[in-house]
This record gives sequence, C-alpha cells and structure tokens, in this order.
Amino acid sequence: MAHRVLRIGVLGGGSWGTTVANLVAARAPTILWARDAAVAREIAERHSNERYLPGARLSKALRATADIGEAVSNADVLVIGVPSQGMRQTAIEVRRHIRPWVPVISLAKGFETDTGLRMTQVIGQELPGHPLGVLTGPNLAGEILAGMAAASVLAMEDEVIVAELQRLFRGGLFRVYTNTDLTGSELGGALKNVFAIAAGMGDGLGAGFNTRSALLTRSIAEMTRLGVALGGRPETFTGLTGLGDLITTCTSPLSRNRTVGFELGKGRSLQDIIAGMNQVAEGVKSSGPIYQAAKALGIEVPIITEVYRVVHEGRSPSSAFRGLLRRGAGSEAEPG
Amino acid sequence: MAHRVLRIGVLGGGSWGTTVANLVAARAPTILWARDAAVAREIAERHSNERYLPGARLSKALRATADIGEAVSNADVLVIGVPSQGMRQTAIEVRRHIRPWVPVISLAKGFETDTGLRMTQVIGQELPGHPLGVLTGPNLAGEILAGMAAASVLAMEDEVIVAELQRLFRGGLFRVYTNTDLTGSELGGALKNVFAIAAGMGDGLGAGFNTRSALLTRSIAEMTRLGVALGGRPETFTGLTGLGDLITTCTSPLSRNRTVGFELGKGRSLQDIIAGMNQVAEGVKSSGPIYQAAKALGIEVPIITEVYRVVHEGRSPSSAFRGLLRRGAGSEAEPG
Repeated sequence: MAHRVLRIGVLGGGSWGTTVANLVAARAPTILWARDAAVAREIAERHSNERYLPGARLSKALRATADIGEAVSNADVLVIGVPSQGMRQTAIEVRRHIRPWVPVISLAKGFETDTGLRMTQVIGQELPGHPLGVLTGPNLAGEILAGMAAASVLAMEDEVIVAELQRLFRGGLFRVYTNTDLTGSELGGALKNVFAIAAGMGDGLGAGFNTRSALLTRSIAEMTRLGVALGGRPETFTGLTGLGDLITTCTSPLSRNRTVGFELGKGRSLQDIIAGMNQVAEGVKSSGPIYQAAKALGIEVPIITEVYRVVHEGRSPSSAFRGLLRRGAGSEAEPG
Repeated sequence: MAHRVLRIGVLGGGSWGTTVANLVAARAPTILWARDAAVAREIAERHSNERYLPGARLSKALRATADIGEAVSNADVLVIGVPSQGMRQTAIEVRRHIRPWVPVISLAKGFETDTGLRMTQVIGQELPGHPLGVLTGPNLAGEILAGMAAASVLAMEDEVIVAELQRLFRGGLFRVYTNTDLTGSELGGALKNVFAIAAGMGDGLGAGFNTRSALLTRSIAEMTRLGVALGGRPETFTGLTGLGDLITTCTSPLSRNRTVGFELGKGRSLQDIIAGMNQVAEGVKSSGPIYQAAKALGIEVPIITEVYRVVHEGRSPSSAFRGLLRRGAGSEAEPG
C-alpha cells in the first residue's frame, strides 16, 4: 500500500472539514466537497473559506467541488466532516458513488438525536462493509491552520489499517496517535461537548479556576463511567480524545459548546444564543440522547443531568450549579 | 469523637497554611504557628497576612503564635503547611510537643531533595506512630479565601479517621472528598508541579490551546505511569489531586510553578526568576528526585526529563519543546 498514491475525498466545507482537507492535501491528492456551491468555488478558485475560516489561506493543491460524486467516486479514503444530524443523509448520498472496501473516517462529534447512535454506527448502517474510523482530539481549527503544534487521534478497530492511514493525516507539527478503541474515542469527542456546556455555564456565572478544574475532573470521572458502560475502554477517556479535547474546549474562548454554556450562564436564552451562531454546537443536541442513554443504563450522571435540564427543561444555570454543589461530597470514587 | 471539640494546630504562615487555618477556624478552635514573629503577630492582632495574602481579611477566631509548642501541645489534629525542604526540621521541632496518636496532615507538595521521600514519609520517620494524611487538590488560596467554590481531597489510609477529619475541613462552598490512597494523592500534588513547569514553558514559547491540552493529557499519562510504579492507584491520578490540581495550576496565571516555566519560556534565567519570588516553586527542587526515581525504576518520562534538563542542565526551553515534538507518535498507550 505504501507505494501507491492514495486519493482522498473529504465531505463537508465547514471549519473542521476544510482544515482537515487542507492538511491532507499536503500529502495526497485531495478533493473537498461542500454542499454550498459558492463555498466550493471559493475554496477551488480563491483558496479561502471566508465564511468558516475567515482570513485563512488554503493550500493550492486542495481541489473542491459541489458535486458529491466527484469527491467520492475516485476516493481511496473518504473523510466525512458534516454536522451529526446531517450524517445519515450524507452517507446515503455517498452510497451510490463510493468504491468497495474504502475506509470512511468521521470527523463529527455528536449523536444522531432520534436514535442516539454514534456517527460511525450511523455510517455503518448506511455503508456496510467499509472499515470505519474517527479522527478526533483537542484540535482548534484555527491553530492547526496556523501551523501550531497539536496532537490528534486516529481511531479504528483494525490496527493494520489505522497504522497505514496514520501517515496521511500526520505531518509537520500535527502529531497523530493511533487508538484501536473506536467506540471510546468517538464517545469522548461527543460527550465532552455536553461537559463543555457545563464548564461554560460555570464561567458565565463567575466561577474561578478551582471550580472549573474540579468540574473538569468530575466530568472526566462521569464521562469514563458512562463511556465504559457504552463500550469504551476506561484509559481512552483520560487520553487525547476525552480529557485532551475537554481541556481545549473548556479553556479556549473559541469553542462553540463552551460559548453556548457561557452565554447561558450570563443569562441569555438558548434560542437567542443559537440564532447568533453560524455553526452547530453539537452538545446542545447531544445532551438529549446522552441523558437518555445514561438513564436507560442506570448510570448516575449529575453534570449531564443538570445540562440536560437547563437545555431541555428551562432550568436556570444558577439553579443547576447550586444543585451540583448541594450534593454531598463523599469518597472521590463515588459519583457527585 | 463527634461530641468532643477538636483543637487544631496549623504550622506554617505562608499563603496556603494561613488559608487552611482560616478555613478550619470556622469549625474548631485553631491556632496557627508562623516562624516569623511579625507574621504571627499580624495574624493574631490585625487578622491579615499582607506578605503572603495581600488584602485578605482573616477570621477573628483564628489565633496565631510564633511559639511552636503553643500551637502543637494542645492540638488534637496537627496540620503542617511548610515548604518541603523545611518539613523534616519542622517535624523534629514538633516531636517534643505533640501528644500521642494525634493525626498529622501535610499540606506540602514536594519531595525531600536529598532522600526523594514524600512529605508523609519524612513526617513518619520523625513522628512515628501518628496517623498521617494530606489535604491536597486544585486549590488556589486566593479563591478559597474569597469564598469561591472549590473541591479538595483529604487522603489517609484509614477510612474511619479520614471520614472523621473530613468534616473539619469542609464547609460552605469548600467541598472535601476522601481518598484512602494516601501515596497516590500525595504523589499527584507533587508531580504536577514539574508538569506545570513544562506547561508554563510552552505558554512562554507561544504554544496554543491545542498544544497545552495535548501536553496536559500526556502529562497525566506520564504521571500515572510513574505514580503507579511508586505505589499509587491509577484512578487517583485522574482525580482531583492529580488531574484537577494540574489543570488549575496550568491554566491559572497565579501558579508559582507555571510562572517559573512561563518565564523560562520567555528566555529569563532560572536564578533570576527564583530571586524575584517570595515563595517556593516546589517543582524546581522536585524535578531532581522525580527524574532520579523514574530513572531508577526504568520508567520512560519524556516530559519530566525535558524539565529536568532545562532546570538542572541548562537546556533551553525551545530545545526541550522541539525534543518532545520530535518523538514519534505511535499508539496513544505508549509513552511519548
């Protein structure tokens, strides 16, 4: 395989899809599909994506199209970076173009609201027979585009394929680790968005460094408890895809999910906050299926529960926080 | 025990010793010993400690003395918050005053340089027969004094004693969890100072959120690997005393150890930085015994090694960082 040139298709012209396509284009012939023809044309002709990556200069080697067949039909590896609620529809559109056995890597960090399924589960239903993976970790698009150092994880169950594909994504100061715990890696990236809303709420309410750090630590314990029940390996959640991603999201002012929480903490309404964003904050939609999954499994998840109540039941962030602080602190090993 | 009033002695008039004494004074008769008579007098008479806690108003219930016998001889519980390199001498001074069986709780987060021993090991050598514990976690003194929410851990091997003492320290928005892994809890607080120097160096060199978060995540993996080899339980290092403390230290501009790293990253010399601080940055001294312990055990610790080289061998922070980035990224489970 190492002596053949792999051609890459990337679906999704948002900030992260474009960033990953730009990264991969340095190593392999890459074509990016954007549903919006104007975005595709801008990337192809002007090497920029002002709507999602204002000011960024993209590689001239990166091609772009609004024709999904063009991006998929010649691809030896397919990367999909569309919002979670559009993943199934995109996978269906991919079906009649994709060649057999081609690995599919998801970049999305959410759950399908109706089914509670992870993204690679959705893809697996629509594209059976394709090896599936995720590229996930603490990666702010802007910093990657600026060439700053970062680490990420390519997770696939097959350790031969994952090692083959690792070299496509890594390069320069972008370090890519591998992990064969696909389930845990994918869960970490999606679960962290809900905890990021909680951390943002705390910051919006004026909490300090001590509180934020305690909240992140208890979030990792809660993420691990739920994630293991959902099939992940415990050590994955304290790695880059769980802990690492959570720290970046919760300490950077650039994260959409933290911003939603922060504005909620400041007293703005959810409707108002969402109306003002041009990209999806996955944690808002994820909180429903995550809360339901925990309930069904009988796992105690106090932080997720409070976020769910604020987002879906109109509870105020300050009541949510007081609720968390009212819980008795016992042994560190217990929930709460 | 619950129906008797416990009298508390706290040794150490620095920022954290004073803060803990002030906290405990709300629940039990407490006397603070400060070696510096002027500090003791200021706390006793003016209810302030301007040198270490500028602007803070302390409880009028908190007594203070410069006579160590006065603080120790009537104590039912002794709390020691002196710098690590002064711990043995303080324990020796305590010996002729302390009553039998009195539990001793350490607040110090370092190792004895000459022996590489943890603080409770040092105390155990000088004060055999006393139940030992640590109060440790993500706790910036200023936020605690301001009454902001925070969580901490009281760790002792005996689960009955630890539950009894828990109620002394907790209160208001200060949540105290218990942990019977004394070794792991104590190691986390001390090891994190070395990783905080690394994170500070990165920030000083202009690293972004992605890098810092990857560095913290790899730090926790490294801390856990070494900490387990030194006798701690793995889950302790992803709790409040390891991960939690590391996050607070590395994200707050108030941490002394991060500040040392930050200034190193900016190009200042270690001597110059230390000369400008009025309190000890424990990680500088700890890096020696920690590096030696890892070497003796054959544990690979790339981050600790780079900090050691910068602090003890004059390596430049930028070479140290390039060294870390040059390591090949393999599976997430491997060191590096």
